Amino acid sequence: MRIGILGAGSIGLLFASYLGKQFDVTLFPRRHEQMDLINEKGVTIETLDSTFTTRVRATLDKNEFNKQELIIIAVKQYHLENIQADITNIHNEIPLLFLQNGKSHLKLINHLEHESIIVGSIEHGALKINETTVVHNGIGLTKLAPYRGEINRISPLLNWHCEYFQFKTYLDYKEILLKKLLVNAIINPLTAILKVKNGELIKNTFFMQIFHDLYNEIIQLFPELDSKIVLNEIIRICRNTENNESSMLKDITLQRKTEIDAIVGYILELAKEKNVQLPLTNMVYGMIKGMEKRGIE
Amino acid sequence: MRIGILGAGSIGLLFASYLGKQFDVTLFPRRHEQMDLINEKGVTIETLDSTFTTRVRATLDKNEFNKQELIIIAVKQYHLENIQADITNIHNEIPLLFLQNGKSHLKLINHLEHESIIVGSIEHGALKINETTVVHNGIGLTKLAPYRGEINRISPLLNWHCEYFQFKTYLDYKEILLKKLLVNAIINPLTAILKVKNGELIKNTFFMQIFHDLYNEIIQLFPELDSKIVLNEIIRICRNTENNESSMLKDITLQRKTEIDAIVGYILELAKEKNVQLPLTNMVYGMIKGMEKRGIE
Repeated sequence: MRIGILGAGSIGLLFASYLGKQFDVTLFPRRHEQMDLINEKGVTIETLDSTFTTRVRATLDKNEFNKQELIIIAVKQYHLENIQADITNIHNEIPLLFLQNGKSHLKLINHLEHESIIVGSIEHGALKINETTVVHNGIGLTKLAPYRGEINRISPLLNWHCEYFQFKTYLDYKEILLKKLLVNAIINPLTAILKVKNGELIKNTFFMQIFHDLYNEIIQLFPELDSKIVLNEIIRICRNTENNESSMLKDITLQRKTEIDAIVGYILELAKEKNVQLPLTNMVYGMIKGMEKRGIE
Repeated sequence: MRIGILGAGSIGLLFASYLGKQFDVTLFPRRHEQMDLINEKGVTIETLDSTFTTRVRATLDKNEFNKQELIIIAVKQYHLENIQADITNIHNEIPLLFLQNGKSHLKLINHLEHESIIVGSIEHGALKINETTVVHNGIGLTKLAPYRGEINRISPLLNWHCEYFQFKTYLDYKEILLKKLLVNAIINPLTAILKVKNGELIKNTFFMQIFHDLYNEIIQLFPELDSKIVLNEIIRICRNTENNESSMLKDITLQRKTEIDAIVGYILELAKEKNVQLPLTNMVYGMIKGMEKRGIE
Protein backbone atom coordinates (compact mmCIF):
# COMPACT_ATOMS: atom_id res chain seq x y z
CA MET A 1 0.00 0.00 0.00
CA ARG A 2 1.22 3.48 -0.90
CA ILE A 3 0.86 5.78 2.08
CA GLY A 4 1.35 9.54 1.99
CA ILE A 5 1.97 11.37 5.27
CA LEU A 6 1.33 15.12 5.45
CA GLY A 7 3.46 16.74 8.08
CA ALA A 8 6.91 15.72 9.29
CA GLY A 9 6.76 16.66 12.97
CA SER A 10 7.23 14.05 15.66
CA ILE A 11 4.07 12.13 14.72
CA GLY A 12 4.59 12.31 10.95
CA LEU A 13 8.16 11.06 11.31
CA LEU A 14 7.14 8.36 13.82
CA PHE A 15 4.50 7.01 11.45
CA ALA A 16 6.81 7.23 8.44
CA SER A 17 9.55 5.23 10.12
CA TYR A 18 7.33 2.41 11.39
CA LEU A 19 5.02 2.22 8.39
CA GLY A 20 7.99 2.55 6.07
CA LYS A 21 9.19 -0.87 7.23
CA GLN A 22 6.23 -2.46 5.50
CA PHE A 23 4.65 0.06 3.15
CA ASP A 24 5.62 2.44 0.38
CA VAL A 25 5.69 5.68 2.38
CA THR A 26 5.96 9.23 1.01
CA LEU A 27 6.44 12.05 3.49
CA PHE A 28 5.24 15.56 2.69
CA PRO A 29 7.16 17.98 4.89
CA ARG A 30 6.73 21.74 4.63
CA ARG A 31 10.30 22.78 3.91
CA HIS A 32 12.92 21.96 1.30
CA GLU A 33 15.70 21.50 3.86
CA GLN A 34 13.82 18.84 5.77
CA MET A 35 12.83 17.11 2.52
CA ASP A 36 16.49 16.93 1.47
CA LEU A 37 17.59 15.65 4.87
CA ILE A 38 14.93 12.93 4.91
CA ASN A 39 15.80 11.81 1.37
CA GLU A 40 19.47 11.74 2.29
CA LYS A 41 19.35 10.18 5.77
CA GLY A 42 15.98 8.46 6.11
CA VAL A 43 14.07 8.71 9.37
CA THR A 44 15.64 7.46 12.58
CA ILE A 45 13.74 6.24 15.62
CA GLU A 46 15.37 5.93 19.00
CA THR A 47 13.54 3.76 21.52
CA LEU A 48 14.68 3.01 25.05
CA ASP A 49 16.63 -0.03 23.91
CA SER A 50 17.30 0.34 20.20
CA THR A 51 17.70 2.66 17.23
CA PHE A 52 16.64 2.03 13.64
CA THR A 53 16.53 4.02 10.44
CA THR A 54 13.90 3.67 7.72
CA ARG A 55 14.45 4.96 4.18
CA VAL A 56 11.41 6.86 3.03
CA ARG A 57 10.80 9.27 0.21
CA ALA A 58 10.08 12.92 0.94
CA THR A 59 8.66 15.41 -1.54
CA LEU A 60 7.01 18.81 -1.66
CA ASP A 61 5.23 17.93 -4.91
CA LYS A 62 1.50 18.02 -4.22
CA ASN A 63 0.76 16.09 -7.40
CA GLU A 64 2.09 13.07 -5.55
CA PHE A 65 -0.88 13.17 -3.17
CA ASN A 66 -3.07 11.53 -5.76
CA LYS A 67 -0.69 8.61 -6.27
CA GLN A 68 -1.31 7.41 -2.70
CA GLU A 69 -3.75 4.76 -1.48
CA LEU A 70 -4.02 6.40 1.93
CA ILE A 71 -3.20 9.89 3.12
CA ILE A 72 -2.38 10.37 6.78
CA ILE A 73 -2.75 13.94 7.94
CA ALA A 74 -0.28 14.40 10.78
CA VAL A 75 0.00 18.17 11.06
CA LYS A 76 -0.98 19.96 14.26
CA GLN A 77 -4.60 21.02 14.59
CA TYR A 78 -3.72 24.70 14.16
CA HIS A 79 -1.81 24.01 10.92
CA LEU A 80 -4.76 22.26 9.30
CA GLU A 81 -6.10 25.55 8.04
CA ASN A 82 -2.94 26.14 5.98
CA ILE A 83 -3.32 22.86 4.11
CA GLN A 84 -7.10 22.83 3.85
CA ALA A 85 -7.02 23.53 0.10
CA ASP A 86 -4.49 20.74 -0.49
CA ILE A 87 -6.70 18.26 1.34
CA THR A 88 -9.78 19.33 -0.59
CA ASN A 89 -7.90 18.67 -3.83
CA ILE A 90 -7.02 15.09 -2.96
CA HIS A 91 -9.14 12.68 -5.06
CA ASN A 92 -12.31 11.74 -3.26
CA GLU A 93 -11.70 8.01 -3.45
CA ILE A 94 -8.41 8.19 -1.52
CA PRO A 95 -9.01 7.43 2.18
CA LEU A 96 -7.89 10.10 4.63
CA LEU A 97 -6.71 9.49 8.18
CA PHE A 98 -6.71 12.45 10.57
CA LEU A 99 -4.55 12.29 13.70
CA GLN A 100 -5.21 15.69 15.31
CA ASN A 101 -5.83 16.31 18.97
CA GLY A 102 -9.04 17.88 20.15
CA LYS A 103 -12.19 17.96 18.11
CA SER A 104 -11.97 21.17 16.15
CA HIS A 105 -10.72 19.33 13.03
CA LEU A 106 -14.13 17.67 12.77
CA LYS A 107 -15.53 20.90 11.33
CA LEU A 108 -13.07 20.76 8.45
CA ILE A 109 -13.63 17.04 7.95
CA ASN A 110 -17.35 17.56 7.71
CA HIS A 111 -16.86 19.84 4.70
CA LEU A 112 -14.78 17.32 2.78
CA GLU A 113 -16.33 15.11 0.11
CA HIS A 114 -14.03 12.14 0.48
CA GLU A 115 -15.63 8.71 0.58
CA SER A 116 -13.55 7.29 3.45
CA ILE A 117 -12.42 9.33 6.36
CA ILE A 118 -10.90 7.80 9.48
CA VAL A 119 -9.97 9.61 12.64
CA GLY A 120 -7.25 8.43 14.97
CA SER A 121 -6.05 9.04 18.48
CA ILE A 122 -2.41 8.46 19.35
CA GLU A 123 -1.10 7.34 22.69
CA HIS A 124 2.55 7.18 21.73
CA GLY A 125 5.13 9.39 23.37
CA ALA A 126 7.32 10.88 20.66
CA LEU A 127 9.87 13.66 20.72
CA LYS A 128 11.39 15.07 17.56
CA ILE A 129 15.01 15.90 18.26
CA ASN A 130 16.03 16.96 14.77
CA GLU A 131 14.63 17.02 11.22
CA THR A 132 15.01 13.28 10.74
CA THR A 133 15.10 11.80 14.26
CA VAL A 134 12.38 11.02 16.77
CA VAL A 135 12.73 9.55 20.24
CA HIS A 136 9.92 7.05 20.71
CA ASN A 137 9.77 7.19 24.49
CA GLY A 138 6.27 6.00 25.10
CA ILE A 139 4.85 2.89 23.45
CA GLY A 140 1.12 3.17 23.04
CA LEU A 141 -1.78 2.37 20.79
CA THR A 142 -3.12 4.24 17.83
CA LYS A 143 -6.89 4.06 18.06
CA LEU A 144 -8.78 4.34 14.78
CA ALA A 145 -12.47 4.76 14.04
CA PRO A 146 -14.43 5.53 10.86
CA TYR A 147 -15.82 9.02 10.53
CA ARG A 148 -17.31 8.24 7.14
CA GLY A 149 -17.20 5.25 4.84
CA GLU A 150 -15.52 1.90 5.32
CA ILE A 151 -12.51 1.50 7.57
CA ASN A 152 -11.68 -1.71 5.68
CA ARG A 153 -10.36 0.41 2.85
CA ILE A 154 -7.13 0.52 4.86
CA SER A 155 -7.13 -3.13 5.92
CA PRO A 156 -3.47 -3.69 4.93
CA LEU A 157 -2.57 -1.22 7.67
CA LEU A 158 -4.99 -2.74 10.17
CA ASN A 159 -3.78 -6.27 9.51
CA TRP A 160 -0.11 -5.40 9.83
CA HIS A 161 1.49 -6.21 13.17
CA CYS A 162 4.40 -4.47 14.77
CA GLU A 163 5.18 -4.90 18.45
CA TYR A 164 5.93 -1.26 19.21
CA PHE A 165 3.40 0.26 16.86
CA GLN A 166 -0.07 -1.14 17.09
CA PHE A 167 -3.43 -0.10 15.72
CA LYS A 168 -6.78 -0.86 17.22
CA THR A 169 -10.10 -0.09 15.59
CA TYR A 170 -13.20 1.23 17.28
CA LEU A 171 -16.73 1.89 16.10
CA ASP A 172 -17.33 5.26 17.71
CA TYR A 173 -14.95 8.02 16.64
CA LYS A 174 -16.55 10.49 19.04
CA GLU A 175 -15.65 8.35 21.99
CA ILE A 176 -12.01 7.90 21.07
CA LEU A 177 -11.60 11.59 20.32
CA LEU A 178 -13.32 12.50 23.55
CA LYS A 179 -11.15 10.17 25.59
CA LYS A 180 -8.05 11.57 23.92
CA LEU A 181 -9.32 15.06 24.59
CA LEU A 182 -9.59 14.23 28.28
CA VAL A 183 -6.13 12.65 28.28
CA ASN A 184 -4.71 15.77 26.68
CA ALA A 185 -6.68 18.14 28.88
CA ILE A 186 -5.13 16.61 31.99
CA ILE A 187 -1.63 15.50 31.02
CA ASN A 188 -0.65 18.28 28.62
CA PRO A 189 -1.32 21.44 30.60
CA LEU A 190 -0.26 19.99 33.96
CA THR A 191 3.07 18.72 32.65
CA ALA A 192 3.64 22.04 30.86
CA ILE A 193 2.87 24.11 33.97
CA LEU A 194 4.79 21.89 36.36
CA LYS A 195 7.66 21.26 33.91
CA VAL A 196 7.63 17.52 34.48
CA LYS A 197 7.58 14.35 32.40
CA ASN A 198 4.27 12.52 32.12
CA GLY A 199 5.13 9.90 34.74
CA GLU A 200 5.74 12.48 37.44
CA LEU A 201 2.03 13.34 37.48
CA ILE A 202 1.24 9.97 38.99
CA LYS A 203 4.42 9.48 41.05
CA ASN A 204 4.36 12.78 42.93
CA THR A 205 1.54 12.59 45.48
CA PHE A 206 0.80 16.31 45.34
CA PHE A 207 0.67 16.34 41.54
CA MET A 208 -1.51 13.19 41.62
CA GLN A 209 -3.99 15.04 43.83
CA ILE A 210 -4.13 17.95 41.36
CA PHE A 211 -4.52 15.43 38.53
CA HIS A 212 -7.53 13.91 40.30
CA ASP A 213 -9.09 17.26 41.19
CA LEU A 214 -8.79 18.53 37.64
CA TYR A 215 -10.11 15.25 36.27
CA ASN A 216 -13.10 15.22 38.60
CA GLU A 217 -13.95 18.74 37.58
CA ILE A 218 -13.81 18.08 33.83
CA ILE A 219 -15.51 14.68 33.83
CA GLN A 220 -18.73 16.28 35.16
CA LEU A 221 -19.25 17.58 31.65
CA PHE A 222 -19.28 14.10 30.15
CA PRO A 223 -21.86 11.99 31.99
CA GLU A 224 -21.94 9.63 28.99
CA LEU A 225 -18.44 8.34 29.87
CA ASP A 226 -17.63 5.88 32.61
CA SER A 227 -15.59 8.12 34.85
CA LYS A 228 -13.61 5.34 36.51
CA ILE A 229 -12.61 3.69 33.22
CA VAL A 230 -11.46 6.94 31.63
CA LEU A 231 -9.48 7.83 34.75
CA ASN A 232 -7.71 4.49 34.64
CA GLU A 233 -6.95 4.95 30.96
CA ILE A 234 -5.33 8.33 31.60
CA ILE A 235 -3.26 6.87 34.44
CA ARG A 236 -2.22 3.98 32.18
CA ILE A 237 -1.12 6.43 29.47
CA CYS A 238 0.87 8.44 32.02
CA ARG A 239 2.59 5.24 33.04
CA ASN A 240 3.24 4.05 29.47
CA THR A 241 4.71 7.42 28.53
CA GLU A 242 6.35 8.18 31.86
CA ASN A 243 9.62 9.32 30.27
CA ASN A 244 7.92 11.46 27.67
CA GLU A 245 7.73 15.22 27.73
CA SER A 246 4.25 16.13 26.56
CA SER A 247 3.93 18.12 23.36
CA MET A 248 2.60 21.06 25.37
CA LEU A 249 5.58 21.06 27.72
CA LYS A 250 7.81 20.98 24.66
CA ASP A 251 5.88 23.81 23.02
CA ILE A 252 6.07 25.98 26.15
CA THR A 253 9.79 25.26 26.60
CA LEU A 254 10.46 26.21 22.98
CA GLN A 255 8.11 29.19 23.25
CA ARG A 256 5.86 27.86 20.52
CA LYS A 257 2.11 28.07 20.19
CA THR A 258 0.40 25.21 22.04
CA GLU A 259 -2.80 23.27 21.34
CA ILE A 260 -4.42 24.64 24.51
CA ASP A 261 -7.34 26.21 22.66
CA ALA A 262 -8.25 23.05 20.78
CA ILE A 263 -8.08 21.02 24.00
CA VAL A 264 -8.81 22.96 27.18
CA GLY A 265 -10.39 25.89 25.34
CA TYR A 266 -12.84 23.46 23.75
CA ILE A 267 -13.78 22.05 27.16
CA LEU A 268 -14.31 25.54 28.56
CA GLU A 269 -16.61 26.43 25.67
CA LEU A 270 -18.60 23.30 26.28
CA ALA A 271 -18.82 24.18 29.99
CA LYS A 272 -20.10 27.63 29.10
CA GLU A 273 -22.82 26.14 26.88
CA LYS A 274 -23.83 23.80 29.67
CA ASN A 275 -23.54 26.57 32.27
CA VAL A 276 -21.05 24.63 34.40
CA GLN A 277 -18.28 26.34 36.38
CA LEU A 278 -14.80 24.83 35.97
CA PRO A 279 -12.50 26.98 38.14
CA LEU A 280 -9.47 24.67 38.05
CA THR A 281 -9.72 24.14 34.30
CA ASN A 282 -10.00 27.89 33.89
CA MET A 283 -6.88 28.49 35.93
CA VAL A 284 -4.90 25.84 34.08
CA TYR A 285 -6.02 27.38 30.78
CA GLY A 286 -4.96 30.86 31.88
CA MET A 287 -1.57 29.66 33.04
CA ILE A 288 -0.80 28.09 29.66
CA LYS A 289 -2.20 31.05 27.69
CA GLY A 290 -0.13 33.44 29.79
CA MET A 291 2.99 31.35 29.31
CA GLU A 292 2.33 31.27 25.57
CA LYS A 293 1.95 35.04 25.56
CA ARG A 294 5.29 35.45 27.34
CA GLY A 295 6.92 33.32 24.67
CA ILE A 296 5.44 35.43 21.91
CA GLU A 297 6.32 38.80 23.41
CA MET B 1 20.81 52.73 69.38
CA ARG B 2 22.49 49.30 69.36
CA ILE B 3 20.56 46.94 67.09
CA GLY B 4 21.16 43.21 66.85
CA ILE B 5 19.87 41.36 63.79
CA LEU B 6 19.37 37.59 63.95
CA GLY B 7 19.67 36.01 60.55
CA ALA B 8 21.77 37.14 57.61
CA GLY B 9 19.59 36.16 54.67
CA SER B 10 18.34 38.74 52.21
CA ILE B 11 16.20 40.57 54.81
CA GLY B 12 18.79 40.46 57.61
CA LEU B 13 21.47 41.83 55.28
CA LEU B 14 19.10 44.45 53.84
CA PHE B 15 18.24 45.74 57.32
CA ALA B 16 21.86 45.63 58.48
CA SER B 17 23.07 47.71 55.55
CA TYR B 18 20.42 50.44 55.80
CA LEU B 19 20.22 50.58 59.59
CA GLY B 20 24.02 50.41 59.81
CA LYS B 21 24.20 53.84 58.17
CA GLN B 22 22.71 55.36 61.32
CA PHE B 23 22.84 52.81 64.13
CA ASP B 24 25.33 50.49 65.81
CA VAL B 25 24.35 47.23 64.11
CA THR B 26 25.50 43.71 65.02
CA LEU B 27 24.56 40.88 62.70
CA PHE B 28 24.19 37.32 64.00
CA PRO B 29 24.57 34.95 61.04
CA ARG B 30 24.52 31.18 61.45
CA ARG B 31 27.87 30.27 60.00
CA HIS B 32 31.48 31.23 60.65
CA GLU B 33 32.29 31.76 56.97
CA GLN B 34 29.56 34.33 56.52
CA MET B 35 30.56 36.07 59.78
CA ASP B 36 34.15 36.39 58.56
CA LEU B 37 33.05 37.68 55.15
CA ILE B 38 30.74 40.30 56.67
CA ASN B 39 33.42 41.49 59.08
CA GLU B 40 35.92 41.70 56.25
CA LYS B 41 33.78 43.21 53.48
CA GLY B 42 30.74 44.80 55.15
CA VAL B 43 27.33 44.42 53.54
CA THR B 44 26.74 45.70 50.02
CA ILE B 45 23.39 46.79 48.63
CA GLU B 46 22.79 47.13 44.92
CA THR B 47 19.77 49.20 43.93
CA LEU B 48 18.64 49.94 40.39
CA ASP B 49 20.77 53.08 40.25
CA SER B 50 23.47 52.79 42.92
CA THR B 51 25.59 50.52 45.09
CA PHE B 52 26.75 51.13 48.63
CA THR B 53 28.56 49.19 51.32
CA THR B 54 27.95 49.49 55.06
CA ARG B 55 30.49 48.26 57.62
CA VAL B 56 28.70 46.25 60.29
CA ARG B 57 29.91 43.86 62.92
CA ALA B 58 29.04 40.17 62.70
CA THR B 59 29.38 37.66 65.50
CA LEU B 60 28.22 34.19 66.50
CA ASP B 61 28.58 35.04 70.20
CA LYS B 62 25.14 34.80 71.78
CA ASN B 63 26.28 36.75 74.84
CA GLU B 64 26.20 39.79 72.59
CA PHE B 65 22.40 39.53 72.33
CA ASN B 66 22.02 41.15 75.72
CA LYS B 67 24.17 44.15 74.82
CA GLN B 68 21.57 45.29 72.25
CA GLU B 69 18.79 47.82 72.66
CA LEU B 70 16.68 46.15 70.00
CA ILE B 71 16.81 42.67 68.52
CA ILE B 72 15.40 42.19 65.03
CA ILE B 73 14.56 38.57 64.24
CA ALA B 74 14.99 38.19 60.49
CA VAL B 75 15.18 34.42 60.05
CA LYS B 76 12.61 32.57 57.97
CA GLN B 77 9.50 31.37 59.73
CA TYR B 78 10.60 27.73 59.55
CA HIS B 79 13.98 28.52 61.12
CA LEU B 80 12.43 30.18 64.17
CA GLU B 81 12.16 26.86 65.93
CA ASN B 82 15.95 26.41 65.81
CA ILE B 83 16.59 29.69 67.61
CA GLN B 84 13.65 29.60 69.97
CA ALA B 85 15.87 28.94 73.00
CA ASP B 86 18.18 31.83 72.07
CA ILE B 87 15.24 34.21 71.86
CA THR B 88 13.83 33.03 75.18
CA ASN B 89 17.21 33.80 76.79
CA ILE B 90 17.31 37.40 75.61
CA HIS B 91 16.68 39.75 78.57
CA ASN B 92 13.03 40.55 78.92
CA GLU B 93 13.50 44.29 78.77
CA ILE B 94 15.11 44.23 75.32
CA PRO B 95 12.47 44.93 72.63
CA LEU B 96 12.10 42.29 69.95
CA LEU B 97 11.02 42.90 66.38
CA PHE B 98 9.77 39.90 64.37
CA LEU B 99 9.74 40.10 60.56
CA GLN B 100 8.41 36.66 59.57
CA ASN B 101 5.82 35.99 56.91
CA GLY B 102 2.58 34.27 57.76
CA LYS B 103 1.15 34.10 61.23
CA SER B 104 2.57 30.92 62.67
CA HIS B 105 5.31 32.84 64.54
CA LEU B 106 2.61 34.39 66.73
CA LYS B 107 2.39 31.12 68.67
CA LEU B 108 6.05 31.38 69.62
CA ILE B 109 5.75 35.08 70.40
CA ASN B 110 2.85 34.43 72.71
CA HIS B 111 5.04 32.20 74.88
CA LEU B 112 7.76 34.82 75.31
CA GLU B 113 7.92 36.98 78.40
CA HIS B 114 9.50 40.05 76.82
CA GLU B 115 8.01 43.41 77.68
CA SER B 116 8.03 44.88 74.18
CA ILE B 117 7.38 42.85 71.12
CA ILE B 118 6.78 44.40 67.72
CA VAL B 119 5.81 42.60 64.56
CA GLY B 120 6.66 43.85 61.12
CA SER B 121 5.65 43.23 57.55
CA ILE B 122 8.13 43.93 54.76
CA GLU B 123 7.24 45.06 51.28
CA HIS B 124 10.78 45.38 49.98
CA GLY B 125 12.04 43.24 47.14
CA ALA B 126 15.43 41.85 48.08
CA LEU B 127 17.59 39.17 46.55
CA LYS B 128 20.70 37.86 48.27
CA ILE B 129 23.31 37.16 45.61
CA ASN B 130 26.16 36.18 47.89
CA GLU B 131 27.05 36.11 51.60
CA THR B 132 27.48 39.88 51.82
CA THR B 133 25.51 41.31 48.90
CA VAL B 134 21.81 41.96 48.38
CA VAL B 135 20.07 43.39 45.36
CA HIS B 136 17.39 45.78 46.59
CA ASN B 137 15.12 45.58 43.59
CA GLY B 138 11.84 46.65 45.11
CA ILE B 139 11.53 49.73 47.29
CA GLY B 140 8.71 49.33 49.77
CA LEU B 141 7.59 50.04 53.28
CA THR B 142 8.25 48.15 56.47
CA LYS B 143 5.02 48.20 58.43
CA LEU B 144 5.35 47.88 62.20
CA ALA B 145 2.77 47.34 64.92
CA PRO B 146 3.02 46.52 68.61
CA TYR B 147 2.19 42.99 69.64
CA ARG B 148 2.87 43.74 73.27
CA GLY B 149 4.18 46.78 75.15
CA GLU B 150 5.11 50.19 73.83
CA ILE B 151 6.30 50.68 70.27
CA ASN B 152 7.93 53.94 71.40
CA ARG B 153 10.72 51.89 72.93
CA ILE B 154 12.22 51.88 69.44
CA SER B 155 11.49 55.52 68.62
CA PRO B 156 15.04 56.23 67.34
CA LEU B 157 14.30 53.75 64.55
CA LEU B 158 10.82 55.15 63.91
CA ASN B 159 12.07 58.74 63.81
CA TRP B 160 14.93 58.00 61.45
CA HIS B 161 14.28 58.85 57.79
CA CYS B 162 15.84 57.19 54.78
CA GLU B 163 14.36 57.60 51.34
CA TYR B 164 14.68 53.98 50.24
CA PHE B 165 14.01 52.37 53.58
CA GLN B 166 10.98 53.65 55.40
CA PHE B 167 9.05 52.50 58.43
CA LYS B 168 5.42 53.14 59.12
CA THR B 169 3.66 52.25 62.34
CA TYR B 170 0.20 50.81 62.71
CA LEU B 171 -2.01 50.03 65.67
CA ASP B 172 -3.30 46.62 64.66
CA TYR B 173 -0.61 43.96 64.15
CA LYS B 174 -3.22 41.41 63.07
CA GLU B 175 -4.25 43.55 60.15
CA ILE B 176 -0.75 44.15 58.83
CA LEU B 177 0.15 40.47 59.16
CA LEU B 178 -3.07 39.46 57.49
CA LYS B 179 -2.55 41.85 54.60
CA LYS B 180 1.00 40.59 54.17
CA LEU B 181 -0.32 37.04 54.32
CA LEU B 182 -2.68 37.82 51.46
CA VAL B 183 0.09 39.51 49.48
CA ASN B 184 2.27 36.46 49.95
CA ALA B 185 -0.53 34.00 49.27
CA ILE B 186 -1.09 35.54 45.84
CA ILE B 187 2.30 36.78 44.64
CA ASN B 188 4.56 34.06 46.00
CA PRO B 189 3.00 30.86 44.73
CA LEU B 190 1.87 32.31 41.39
CA THR B 191 5.32 33.70 40.57
CA ALA B 192 6.91 30.42 41.66
CA ILE B 193 4.56 28.30 39.54
CA LEU B 194 4.68 30.56 36.50
CA LYS B 195 8.42 31.33 36.87
CA VAL B 196 7.95 35.06 36.45
CA LYS B 197 9.00 38.22 38.23
CA ASN B 198 6.38 39.97 40.39
CA GLY B 199 5.52 42.58 37.77
CA GLU B 200 4.53 39.98 35.19
CA LEU B 201 1.51 39.00 37.27
CA ILE B 202 -0.11 42.32 36.52
CA LYS B 203 1.29 42.90 33.01
CA ASN B 204 0.25 39.59 31.47
CA THR B 205 -3.53 39.66 31.01
CA PHE B 206 -3.94 35.91 31.52
CA PHE B 207 -1.86 35.92 34.69
CA MET B 208 -3.78 38.97 35.91
CA GLN B 209 -7.02 37.03 35.52
CA ILE B 210 -5.63 34.14 37.58
CA PHE B 211 -4.39 36.67 40.15
CA HIS B 212 -7.92 38.08 40.44
CA ASP B 213 -9.61 34.67 40.57
CA LEU B 214 -7.27 33.44 43.30
CA TYR B 215 -7.67 36.69 45.22
CA ASN B 216 -11.46 36.60 45.03
CA GLU B 217 -11.45 33.06 46.31
CA ILE B 218 -9.20 33.77 49.30
CA ILE B 219 -10.70 37.11 50.31
CA GLN B 220 -14.05 35.40 51.06
CA LEU B 221 -12.40 34.11 54.22
CA PHE B 222 -11.69 37.60 55.51
CA PRO B 223 -14.93 39.61 55.49
CA GLU B 224 -13.35 42.02 58.01
CA LEU B 225 -11.04 43.39 55.29
CA ASP B 226 -12.04 45.86 52.62
CA SER B 227 -11.58 43.65 49.58
CA LYS B 228 -11.02 46.50 47.12
CA ILE B 229 -8.36 48.21 49.26
CA VAL B 230 -6.40 45.01 49.87
CA LEU B 231 -6.53 44.15 46.16
CA ASN B 232 -5.13 47.56 45.28
CA GLU B 233 -2.38 47.14 47.85
CA ILE B 234 -1.30 43.82 46.37
CA ILE B 235 -1.29 45.31 42.88
CA ARG B 236 0.77 48.27 44.15
CA ILE B 237 3.30 45.90 45.71
CA CYS B 238 3.53 43.91 42.46
CA ARG B 239 4.25 47.17 40.68
CA ASN B 240 6.80 48.43 43.24
CA THR B 241 8.64 45.10 43.15
CA GLU B 242 8.11 44.38 39.46
CA ASN B 243 11.73 43.37 38.87
CA ASN B 244 11.90 41.20 41.95
CA GLU B 245 11.83 37.41 41.96
CA SER B 246 9.69 36.41 44.91
CA SER B 247 11.33 34.44 47.69
CA MET B 248 9.19 31.44 46.76
CA LEU B 249 10.28 31.51 43.13
CA LYS B 250 13.87 31.70 44.35
CA ASP B 251 13.32 28.82 46.78
CA ILE B 252 11.76 26.64 44.08
CA THR B 253 14.50 27.47 41.59
CA LEU B 254 17.19 26.59 44.15
CA GLN B 255 15.20 23.52 45.25
CA ARG B 256 14.89 24.81 48.80
CA LYS B 257 12.01 24.47 51.21
CA THR B 258 9.46 27.24 50.71
CA GLU B 259 7.18 29.08 53.15
CA ILE B 260 4.09 27.62 51.46
CA ASP B 261 2.78 25.97 54.63
CA ALA B 262 3.01 29.14 56.73
CA ILE B 263 1.26 31.13 54.02
CA VAL B 264 -1.11 29.13 51.82
CA GLY B 265 -1.25 26.17 54.21
CA TYR B 266 -2.42 28.53 56.94
CA ILE B 267 -5.19 29.87 54.69
CA LEU B 268 -6.33 26.35 53.82
CA GLU B 269 -6.51 25.41 57.50
CA LEU B 270 -8.60 28.47 58.18
CA ALA B 271 -10.87 27.55 55.26
CA LYS B 272 -11.28 24.06 56.70
CA GLU B 273 -12.29 25.49 60.09
CA LYS B 274 -14.80 27.76 58.39
CA ASN B 275 -15.96 24.99 56.08
CA VAL B 276 -15.23 26.99 52.92
CA GLN B 277 -14.04 25.35 49.69
CA LEU B 278 -11.01 26.96 48.05
CA PRO B 279 -10.32 24.87 44.92
CA LEU B 280 -7.86 27.29 43.29
CA THR B 281 -5.93 27.85 46.50
CA ASN B 282 -5.79 24.10 46.96
CA MET B 283 -4.39 23.58 43.49
CA VAL B 284 -1.80 26.31 43.89
CA TYR B 285 -0.76 24.77 47.23
CA GLY B 286 -0.42 21.31 45.69
CA MET B 287 1.65 22.63 42.79
CA ILE B 288 4.17 24.24 45.13
CA LYS B 289 4.26 21.26 47.51
CA GLY B 290 4.82 18.92 44.58
CA MET B 291 7.58 21.13 43.18
CA GLU B 292 9.20 21.22 46.64
CA LYS B 293 9.00 17.46 46.83
CA ARG B 294 10.71 17.14 43.46
CA GLY B 295 13.51 19.37 44.68
CA ILE B 296 14.00 17.28 47.80
CA GLU B 297 14.00 13.93 46.03
